[in-house]
Amino acid sequence: MAQLRIALAQVNPTVGDIDGNVRLVLEWARKAADARAHIVAFPEMMLTGYPIEDLAFRTSFVDASRAAVEQLAVDLDATGLGELVVVVGYLGKVVESADRLGVPKGSPQNCAAFLHRGQARVRYAKHHLPNYGVFDEARYFVSGDTTEVARICGVDVAFCICEDLWQDGPSAAAKAADAGLLLVINGSPYETNKDDVRLELVSRRAREAGCALAYVNMVGGQDELVFDGDSIVVDGDGTTVARAGQFTDELVVADLDLPSGGVVPELRADPASGLRIHHTVLSDVENAPYERVVAVTAPRLHEQAEVWAALVTGLRDYVRKNGFSSVLLGMSGGIDSTVVAALACDAVGAVNVHGVSNPSAWSSEHSRSDAADQAQRTGLNLRTVPIAPLVEAFQEAVQLDGLALENLQARLRAVIWMGLSNQEGHLVLACGNKSELAVGYSTIYGDAVGGLAPIKDVFKTQVWELAKWRNAEAERLGQTPPIPPDTITKEPSAELRPGQKDTDSLPPYELLDDVLDDYIERDHGSRELIAAGFAPPLVERVLQLTDRAEYKRRQYPPGPKISSRNFGRDRRLPITNSWREYAPS
Amino acid sequence: MAQLRIALAQVNPTVGDIDGNVRLVLEWARKAADARAHIVAFPEMMLTGYPIEDLAFRTSFVDASRAAVEQLAVDLDATGLGELVVVVGYLGKVVESADRLGVPKGSPQNCAAFLHRGQARVRYAKHHLPNYGVFDEARYFVSGDTTEVARICGVDVAFCICEDLWQDGPSAAAKAADAGLLLVINGSPYETNKDDVRLELVSRRAREAGCALAYVNMVGGQDELVFDGDSIVVDGDGTTVARAGQFTDELVVADLDLPSGGVVPELRADPASGLRIHHTVLSDVENAPYERVVAVTAPRLHEQAEVWAALVTGLRDYVRKNGFSSVLLGMSGGIDSTVVAALACDAVGAVNVHGVSNPSAWSSEHSRSDAADQAQRTGLNLRTVPIAPLVEAFQEAVQLDGLALENLQARLRAVIWMGLSNQEGHLVLACGNKSELAVGYSTIYGDAVGGLAPIKDVFKTQVWELAKWRNAEAERLGQTPPIPPDTITKEPSAELRPGQKDTDSLPPYELLDDVLDDYIERDHGSRELIAAGFAPPLVERVLQLTDRAEYKRRQYPPGPKISSRNFGRDRRLPITNSWREYAPS
Repeated sequence: MAQLRIALAQVNPTVGDIDGNVRLVLEWARKAADARAHIVAFPEMMLTGYPIEDLAFRTSFVDASRAAVEQLAVDLDATGLGELVVVVGYLGKVVESADRLGVPKGSPQNCAAFLHRGQARVRYAKHHLPNYGVFDEARYFVSGDTTEVARICGVDVAFCICEDLWQDGPSAAAKAADAGLLLVINGSPYETNKDDVRLELVSRRAREAGCALAYVNMVGGQDELVFDGDSIVVDGDGTTVARAGQFTDELVVADLDLPSGGVVPELRADPASGLRIHHTVLSDVENAPYERVVAVTAPRLHEQAEVWAALVTGLRDYVRKNGFSSVLLGMSGGIDSTVVAALACDAVGAVNVHGVSNPSAWSSEHSRSDAADQAQRTGLNLRTVPIAPLVEAFQEAVQLDGLALENLQARLRAVIWMGLSNQEGHLVLACGNKSELAVGYSTIYGDAVGGLAPIKDVFKTQVWELAKWRNAEAERLGQTPPIPPDTITKEPSAELRPGQKDTDSLPPYELLDDVLDDYIERDHGSRELIAAGFAPPLVERVLQLTDRAEYKRRQYPPGPKISSRNFGRDRRLPITNSWREYAPS
Repeated sequence: MAQLRIALAQVNPTVGDIDGNVRLVLEWARKAADARAHIVAFPEMMLTGYPIEDLAFRTSFVDASRAAVEQLAVDLDATGLGELVVVVGYLGKVVESADRLGVPKGSPQNCAAFLHRGQARVRYAKHHLPNYGVFDEARYFVSGDTTEVARICGVDVAFCICEDLWQDGPSAAAKAADAGLLLVINGSPYETNKDDVRLELVSRRAREAGCALAYVNMVGGQDELVFDGDSIVVDGDGTTVARAGQFTDELVVADLDLPSGGVVPELRADPASGLRIHHTVLSDVENAPYERVVAVTAPRLHEQAEVWAALVTGLRDYVRKNGFSSVLLGMSGGIDSTVVAALACDAVGAVNVHGVSNPSAWSSEHSRSDAADQAQRTGLNLRTVPIAPLVEAFQEAVQLDGLALENLQARLRAVIWMGLSNQEGHLVLACGNKSELAVGYSTIYGDAVGGLAPIKDVFKTQVWELAKWRNAEAERLGQTPPIPPDTITKEPSAELRPGQKDTDSLPPYELLDDVLDDYIERDHGSRELIAAGFAPPLVERVLQLTDRAEYKRRQYPPGPKISSRNFGRDRRLPITNSWREYAPS
């Protein structure tokens, strides 16, 4: 047995910012060295950020990524970090035509390298390319076909990338190679309860491989994805040795007692998978016994706390990584804009949050007072621009009534927000929730405008739960609850005509969200919904509204994904679509 | 040798409308029978329309498609069409677990069946699933692994679906099976000059297979895709026997003298590919000699005529298939809205086209007169709603200047269009071209609003070419040219401030479009662009503008794809993206 101190750098890269990501690696490799780690692993595609989408096809970008990994090895060595093994993901390409028969040279690959003593070594290309849900990796990458094992301080470390671990190959290969540790680098996006699934997977694969397993994931937001970290180290029984927090930049450090490596074969094949196993010795000298550090296992967040953190992370990073420092939103006094305002205050600070109240002739007194109340509670900036004179001016130009007049008000508000955004440089936030977005209960180019829609993947019923949790959390911490209690308890209304209630047009949200959950997240058809006990007219109404709103969703801003199927890359339906679930033949 | 009369039904299915698509098959099978054809082939995924995207995951939809193909076989037989072999594409699934090791039962497949004597026979699942460009078939389908050969009137017909033909397998399998005909059904979207590529492919594969080849493609628009038909029959030398028109509903009928089939093996393997070849006898009796029909080879359209037809088809079908009958657009008097208005008149009839002129304080006289001139030339409906009073009302509410004031005007116009759309039920058309969309020279929620953007994939320089061609075509036909000549020759201006010209903000369009073509359609980086002779400051400016406008494109309406890389499914870049081509290190 040999001692090995492993560090997992749970950090937040930015897509496209190769220079900045390299600086992050240098900074955190230094922290790992200071913690006397022998190896530090960074997430999947660390140098480019993840996912890079069609940037994979830009030769200039591939070349920059490949040059960066070589230079990084040199720079690490030059700054005294050459002995530390630094594992980084990057965008590579097929360089040797012998690599894969029939695969064109130059095809992009999702790669990783072990940087050691000034060189990039042990190059690995991801084997299994996810092409479901939000992932399109079969579009971008060519699979690798060789398993890599690196000997580090006398211990054999088998390696794979993210989706590989969800398949049977890597644990079998680690076992075939008698590895002491299976290391996995990841770009695994957040979904509610994914941490449970992840821990179960990591434990199971460790037991299959018969060795310890270290899993590092990134944190931060990238368009509609949020990465939650949750990096894990388990021993060969699958027992947790260390676990990082969620949505936190963090260095996990763990000491492991691992079996020493045996005789090194140059190349062998795993008899089960037929995969080639390539073995590289980086350092064969085992560590002299040293004192262990106490590894930390961070507690998991409560359900609503976890979602709140995901939304704040997604919002903060979208603002920051797109060069904004402030946000603007319409504050109607309703629960949606109130929760978005509270999220924004947590994400970018109340001083950078600009609320606009746009009362109409039909806005209730509490709409105005609730917005003012929240401004007072949080310190966000609020201004009021009434829209009645604008509605009048429009009605002189074009005479609208009914739904057209309702939409007009929503659109005039949006013109004000966008004008102030252009004038003052704020990012506009759209406040629609997932229930509204599903059934099209929003005005396109009205309340739907914005660069980001922070709660677009949150059902209305959960918006209320989040509001209650956030206020309770504030009370627990002795702070002022940011959300006026009245906004949580009052009946929802768009206030676009006198006395309007959401329930005039929609089923009660508890019922609506139940149907939507089955229809959207589970792809259940009308028969299955009716068999599950929903009334046929309800099913017909909800499915009809949802199907007809596809065109609105296509033009809606992106927003952080928290569910197993968001309205975005996860669910790709044609706009032109005559399939009607609600008319079962 | 045996005679066989083959019919190719180049028709226009609608995604999701299984009942309507079945009616189309019955109608066109009747036409084929009336033309005394022995076999009629319909396009890929005929019963469901194509592409169906995530509808593939809806069990109810898969079941409906599978039931429809069985019922269709019965209905064809019941209406006296049982002897005609009807080949249709449909959405199927893996039904026998023995089909593919490790593939879950129920996984969707892109299928086809030969309907004959009341039964669906010769079931084939597409082998090669395109997952590039606009295609995501690896997301949806499981590949088939068996080549099908059907004996029809004594002739062996080998079969494949679309992308299969772009790979080497099918022609090799047809040769291995000594087939007399290789039949290919397709859902092949239009791109400029794709007809040349297609003919070359079809001819080459026929020569490789050593037999005649029949290629049927669909027509019509589906969201951003337009299908151009261009169905082709070639003989074993690759010489064209018959060819359908482009963008036309059409039955191609051709008589072929084909080798008689030999001894029928139940199952054999192609020694080259290792694929199983399954052979089914539908009818073994050769036809008695009969008189041949003269097959038609339609002439190809002129370059601009072809693009115009693609845009009209895409526009017409989007309107019709989404349940609209009329369109509305802002008419600025500029070349873009003028061309969109002319396209709309050709697509849905001038009586269904509603133009709105919204002069501002800075609109030139010719802007108003050109819009009125076009209304007179075409007969479209034009109304005028000046925006000066609305701008004034807004300036009292929020004081805007500079770019914010320019955008305000564009957005107030959009509010008027959307109000009229809501009130009167028209589909709003966005008039932006590809050059504008690339560099972000448009106002989000202003001129960018609409359900469809007919010229979003047309560079500005080509917009002018199309206008000239359309007017010349009208003159050739003795009709009134629909486009006021002045709009083609005048200098482009957004008219959002006094004396504004596009060239104040942008390079000349000839130069801009050249850079964009290399950057967008060829993925060239800044080094390659500079090496190609473009000035570094020009490259920097254009790439910077293009990269920064990604968020606008993400919220832009869909529009018909005519290029090899449109702004849509073809080009998927992150919004949050710090990669900057124009700062080469």
